Amino acid sequence: MKWRPNRHSHLTIQEQIVDWIKSRIERGDWSVGTKIPTQRQLAMEFNVNRSTVQLAIDELKADGFLESKMGSGVFVANNSWNVLLDKAQPNWQQHIESSIHKPNYHTIQLINEYEQKNHIIRLGTGELSPELLPTKQIEQSLKAISLDSKAIGYSSPQGSEKLRGILCNYLEKRGIQTDPENILIVSGALQALQLIAIGLLEEGSIVFQEQPSYLNSIHPFQSSGMRIISVLRDVHLADTLRRLKRKRQSLFYCVPTLHNPTGNNWSVEERENFYNVCKELQIPIIEDDVYHELLFESSLPAIKSFDTSGQVLYIGSVSKTLSPGLRIGWVVAPSPVVRRLADIKMQTDYGSSAFSQEIVAHWISSGLYERHLIKLREQLRKRATFVEEILEQQFKKIATWKKSDGGFYIWLRFHEPIVNKTLFLNLVNQNVLINPGYIYETRDLHHIRISYAYASFEELKEGLNILLELIQH
Amino acid sequence: MKWRPNRHSHLTIQEQIVDWIKSRIERGDWSVGTKIPTQRQLAMEFNVNRSTVQLAIDELKADGFLESKMGSGVFVANNSWNVLLDKAQPNWQQHIESSIHKPNYHTIQLINEYEQKNHIIRLGTGELSPELLPTKQIEQSLKAISLDSKAIGYSSPQGSEKLRGILCNYLEKRGIQTDPENILIVSGALQALQLIAIGLLEEGSIVFQEQPSYLNSIHPFQSSGMRIISVLRDVHLADTLRRLKRKRQSLFYCVPTLHNPTGNNWSVEERENFYNVCKELQIPIIEDDVYHELLFESSLPAIKSFDTSGQVLYIGSVSKTLSPGLRIGWVVAPSPVVRRLADIKMQTDYGSSAFSQEIVAHWISSGLYERHLIKLREQLRKRATFVEEILEQQFKKIATWKKSDGGFYIWLRFHEPIVNKTLFLNLVNQNVLINPGYIYETRDLHHIRISYAYASFEELKEGLNILLELIQH
Repeated sequence: MKWRPNRHSHLTIQEQIVDWIKSRIERGDWSVGTKIPTQRQLAMEFNVNRSTVQLAIDELKADGFLESKMGSGVFVANNSWNVLLDKAQPNWQQHIESSIHKPNYHTIQLINEYEQKNHIIRLGTGELSPELLPTKQIEQSLKAISLDSKAIGYSSPQGSEKLRGILCNYLEKRGIQTDPENILIVSGALQALQLIAIGLLEEGSIVFQEQPSYLNSIHPFQSSGMRIISVLRDVHLADTLRRLKRKRQSLFYCVPTLHNPTGNNWSVEERENFYNVCKELQIPIIEDDVYHELLFESSLPAIKSFDTSGQVLYIGSVSKTLSPGLRIGWVVAPSPVVRRLADIKMQTDYGSSAFSQEIVAHWISSGLYERHLIKLREQLRKRATFVEEILEQQFKKIATWKKSDGGFYIWLRFHEPIVNKTLFLNLVNQNVLINPGYIYETRDLHHIRISYAYASFEELKEGLNILLELIQH
Repeated sequence: MKWRPNRHSHLTIQEQIVDWIKSRIERGDWSVGTKIPTQRQLAMEFNVNRSTVQLAIDELKADGFLESKMGSGVFVANNSWNVLLDKAQPNWQQHIESSIHKPNYHTIQLINEYEQKNHIIRLGTGELSPELLPTKQIEQSLKAISLDSKAIGYSSPQGSEKLRGILCNYLEKRGIQTDPENILIVSGALQALQLIAIGLLEEGSIVFQEQPSYLNSIHPFQSSGMRIISVLRDVHLADTLRRLKRKRQSLFYCVPTLHNPTGNNWSVEERENFYNVCKELQIPIIEDDVYHELLFESSLPAIKSFDTSGQVLYIGSVSKTLSPGLRIGWVVAPSPVVRRLADIKMQTDYGSSAFSQEIVAHWISSGLYERHLIKLREQLRKRATFVEEILEQQFKKIATWKKSDGGFYIWLRFHEPIVNKTLFLNLVNQNVLINPGYIYETRDLHHIRISYAYASFEELKEGLNILLELIQH
């Protein structure tokens, strides 16, 4: 917020706060039912004592502008309008509740919200630490970029032709033979899933996944009316899929390399078997490959690299490796699929940032990207080792885990089912943010996705300590 | 495409082309039913004679890989897989046809496609000409940008706090009092509409609009199951809306300043009346204000500026003024609405490009933006005058129009209903691309949206000449 009370005004601070809140309500910015910020937040933002804020809010409550709801905060009261004037106001809350798209899970909304705060230790974040981002180098590279007037106009439907050409060469090293015509530039992998949901599947289609799954923490398919079914990838996979699929349209979403949240890798044989089963049953595969560059040891082939039937929709991105703020990812798929997704992308956001595309093209084609990755893997490995040592010393009696092969995550399993929302909220109260297992598998109360990629070494240590203490009490 | 035939190969060019097309089909890049590029396109891209391409395609047809469909092109044949191997392949065409989102209108798909070609005269494009974009200045400004590591990570749900703060000051000049908390950064105005469609309306809601309307050329609401109803904004507006709305949820989409496609402006009184009617009926307003900075003369107040009931969802953007490639726009709305839309945006693309946001923040806060706008308006006015002179000289007997007040467009009305798809396609054949009126109002065969913003002076003259000749024959 940009407003601050004026210390030289003839009005008291409390009066100014009361007037300001009234004006927000009057202007409709805070409509009926809006939850207002906590007293603590307001006090911090206005740089005043919390007791002053409290007095102001009490006054507004007494006047009928605000009302408390037990345990959930202070809201703009239903009759605030009657108090102010005789005004009609749209009932936004009702609009929101009856609309199409699902809200994020409350836990995830809280994570999104608390991630923005300073002083919070982010033990679960799926994002590189600011210190691992090559910020200064990117800043430097901005100076080397020369812009073409055509390139900063509206994009061609599939995205920058230059970038798509560069990605072809880059993907060739990953064993994927493709053509610029078969690439669609998207604003991150999540958008790719969103486009696939509304562009390739009818309502009631089935999206298969493994359990636990990143897909459970996001809603592109669920909000479009698809059914998500978790299956075991065992010797009966073909039978299971056949039985569940019947005549319905379906897709299989998988993360075969550095799986999110478990960090697991599929062997080459597992990949081949899986591909053959899906091909046999004509179940297209979404291969989410955004972490593969972060494997500490040698690479594993993409399933797309042995796709000879246009079965695999391959998704890559620079969000986990270079900068999430670029919002650049890509889909490799058969031409009709790419054209269809491009057509929908044009209808929803007219293409991805031309500037981000230029930066990514520059980084990949100049070799800056690969050199950065070498250093990044080293840094991540050091962080993984650091966390594993703490776990070894302190968590051995209460939890198990697997040594990390790369990426960001350790999938920490507690012997007891203790990872519930209360634990999550208690940790938030102590300024520690975790990604609990239940956002990846509803009934899971055993796991935490620990990320060693974001917090500093000190914070990792402190955060794990707080976690341990809380569990032991 | 990156592939080119090798002139030093032991295979003939024709054989190489045949092998290459087979490999595209085999790999599944060109799946069954894919329309392959035209012979002309392939010849151009391979840099070979068209007859060589034709022979290669004939051979593939004879072998059963490809098939012609009368009047619509050459496609990968249904039995191409039987020919190659005994392979199963997903039926992507079926997937596409049964999926949720509507395809773009064919005319608009063609416009998107042809806009990318060189040598085409774009007489209708809703985009600034490359020569009107401050490309070199933006390039220069990239050097002045210093990046913060936190800013290039995942964005906060509502977008860069810095940019939102700057926009508050900027919007104040437009008479809009707001707070960073009430602003959501989006990837262009179109995305704002998409988020509103899935985040604020239940299926079957009504979206009111004027006729003709930009909304008819895009599908965010239609694809989400909303009904679009065009109404006349006359003295009976309140009655009309009341009768049509009944108990259903509704919104009114409007472009009161430099309306797309007509270029019309609502008077201050019209704005006030309209706001009062909608407020009375509790019909929220979407005010699309992306053109207002391009008014040649003095500004007109935004409807949002007299909104005292949180009734107006205001949309702005830099796509029409600075660079569409930035993909940056904003929504100003009551807090619960902004939070809801931000939550959905996080679920669909995790925020807009941090780099684009930095650039826009830099341009607005440094004053570069306002200085650029002054020059831009001058240039656009010159272009408008130029086109109006041509119209005056050549189109006076067959069409009418209104002198432009700003923006990009002249809504040219022909006396006769001649603006049909045949005219559109005939013009494409002569390398002239128009935006026919029927994409803004299905039954309209009288109008063309002429844009003086994109083509060069020479092209404008030539394009209008070709248009005139074609009409006269």
